[in-house]
Amino acid sequence: MTEISLDCQSSLDGLRKGIDAIDQEIVELLSKRQKQVDQVVALKKANNLPVYHPAREEDLISARRLQARGAGLCPDFIEELYRIIIHRSRVVQTGQMARKGVRPGATVLIVGGRGEMGRYFADWFQGAGYGVRVMSSRDWGDIANLCDGIDLAMISVPIDKTIEIINRIAPYLPPDAVLVDVTSIKKRPLAAMLEAHPGPVLGLHPLFGPTTSTLDKQIVVACGGRDAAACQWVIDQFSTWGSIIVTATAEEHDHVMEFVQALRHFATFCFGQFLAAKKAPLARTLEFSSPIYRLELGMVGRLFAQDPGLYAEIIFATPERRALLKEFIESLNKNLHMLETGDKMVFEAEFKKVAAWFGPFGEQAIRESSFLIDKLIERF
Amino acid sequence: MTEISLDCQSSLDGLRKGIDAIDQEIVELLSKRQKQVDQVVALKKANNLPVYHPAREEDLISARRLQARGAGLCPDFIEELYRIIIHRSRVVQTGQMARKGVRPGATVLIVGGRGEMGRYFADWFQGAGYGVRVMSSRDWGDIANLCDGIDLAMISVPIDKTIEIINRIAPYLPPDAVLVDVTSIKKRPLAAMLEAHPGPVLGLHPLFGPTTSTLDKQIVVACGGRDAAACQWVIDQFSTWGSIIVTATAEEHDHVMEFVQALRHFATFCFGQFLAAKKAPLARTLEFSSPIYRLELGMVGRLFAQDPGLYAEIIFATPERRALLKEFIESLNKNLHMLETGDKMVFEAEFKKVAAWFGPFGEQAIRESSFLIDKLIERF
Repeated sequence: MTEISLDCQSSLDGLRKGIDAIDQEIVELLSKRQKQVDQVVALKKANNLPVYHPAREEDLISARRLQARGAGLCPDFIEELYRIIIHRSRVVQTGQMARKGVRPGATVLIVGGRGEMGRYFADWFQGAGYGVRVMSSRDWGDIANLCDGIDLAMISVPIDKTIEIINRIAPYLPPDAVLVDVTSIKKRPLAAMLEAHPGPVLGLHPLFGPTTSTLDKQIVVACGGRDAAACQWVIDQFSTWGSIIVTATAEEHDHVMEFVQALRHFATFCFGQFLAAKKAPLARTLEFSSPIYRLELGMVGRLFAQDPGLYAEIIFATPERRALLKEFIESLNKNLHMLETGDKMVFEAEFKKVAAWFGPFGEQAIRESSFLIDKLIERF
Repeated sequence: MTEISLDCQSSLDGLRKGIDAIDQEIVELLSKRQKQVDQVVALKKANNLPVYHPAREEDLISARRLQARGAGLCPDFIEELYRIIIHRSRVVQTGQMARKGVRPGATVLIVGGRGEMGRYFADWFQGAGYGVRVMSSRDWGDIANLCDGIDLAMISVPIDKTIEIINRIAPYLPPDAVLVDVTSIKKRPLAAMLEAHPGPVLGLHPLFGPTTSTLDKQIVVACGGRDAAACQWVIDQFSTWGSIIVTATAEEHDHVMEFVQALRHFATFCFGQFLAAKKAPLARTLEFSSPIYRLELGMVGRLFAQDPGLYAEIIFATPERRALLKEFIESLNKNLHMLETGDKMVFEAEFKKVAAWFGPFGEQAIRESSFLIDKLIERF
């Protein structure tokens, strides 16, 4: 409706540049502050003093609140900021210690340890004090040394290489080493591990990606293979990191995952594919939309910001998956007639049938998503 | 316990004084920043520009993240701080106005004022001190009285009744009353209002439902009809309530909404429909799944917990929408071959094409959804 005058635009630009310059100074000061804090921590550690000093923190907050009031800022606002700043410096200080190992002295070999997920697990095991070795495809020449004396071999390679690599590495493993895979399908890898390795075997499927900053409350599906007692420490390690362990047979796991992974990701892929094909006015749709749309489109955008190979693997992993996806597409064609005739009654009847099937989950979903929408609004 | 040596104590004191000095500078800069922001707001108001500028905010955050990385600070930490700083400046800006009426003494007629959305707006106008009258289908006998002397008539009725009701009520309106509709399509209602009413006309599409507790940051699309100056107070009223006004032509609005509403809801409908048809093990999929799956399935469940009639209306609103949805289904059939042959290369090539089209939105989506996942984990 309103045209922005050039005058107004250049004033705005000037003010914004001023704000940017201030922000730059603030971040510089925060960096300087962090360095001072690091020195305090080093000094305290050298003198065996506790890092956390509640009284000092409260003094600091009080002083900043007072200053804020004088400077025309809301003291609660400044306190909120400083709680985060202080919390952060504590996290940095204590972060290193929080990740204890449950089996001190054990050695872990991450097969595929130069892939994203492999590196991720290597970091976690290292952080917990384990001896960690990583190997990738170029390390086969050194395989005997790498496997020598290890307590755990974790296979973290693309799905379509998993079986081959299990078969290739198994002969080199100490017989009592735990063999674990972290593939997102479980039936075939587990069978292969059981056949190739006579020792303890465990199938894991961590339901998170390498960008997850914490394992807290992240789910890991565990499918028992052989010698559960000998495998238990690996499960305990994930529990110690905060993960939730869900147990299942490999068969059940794979069936559930057809929906959780294959169908869902494929449906998202199709949606994004159509948006691109139609050149949907993406930026404009975001400006025009409710937080929940932003969230939903975010789910689509998120998929396409990740590794195409990974999703190809997930979607094409098994013939059962591909059959399910074909069925999905075919099922959609049934809706064509309703769209052609504009028959709302058919739509509503179908809608009610599905709603009945979802049952109480719908209400729960409303509650959960409303909570998230509030968070989204707060933040953006 | 350790005794602190004098040396160590004086080093600590020195470092702490340094931190205090830095903190003092930071608060001073925040105060300077707030003053600059106040000037931006004043300038925007004087020029009738919306206060909230999502793209500018995202740019600012990205720049600070980048700087943080360079300065050895955690980008997420800096983002968290800046979300609070930005949120605060917006609260300060919209806070003073709260729910004040911008046109004291005016009278508003809500047509369809006994529907959920109508009641919702009636409450808001009443809360802002306006004289509010509501009418529903049983009030046509009293129509002349209801319209007498009103300053604004707001049409809040189901899409398929909008045109008919506009035509029926227009002859009773004072010629200088503002006629507004809040339908989720804009082209046809706006044309009908322009034809039926000679006075000020404005098309609005509030992108939220009657369960929204605050209008803060809720989006309202405004499509100018006639006499923008006379309509401005209605727009200002929504701004005062904290809403974000996005302007568009009715054509653009309807095109964008084909994606935001029709396609999105229809795709979700199809997904839920297939889950129900296949009797997917819903409860188990939730136990087995990452927070992000929970979130995505929640979006599906959420849809089916709502009014089928509302979604039928949205999806079947215009022939253009139905054509787009047919095209969507047909486009999916193209993926059948790739599934039958298990051709990952085709999938990956297509994936990359779509990813390129999404561009930087993908990264942003990862950041946003990761934030929400953390919130979800915190809570559940």
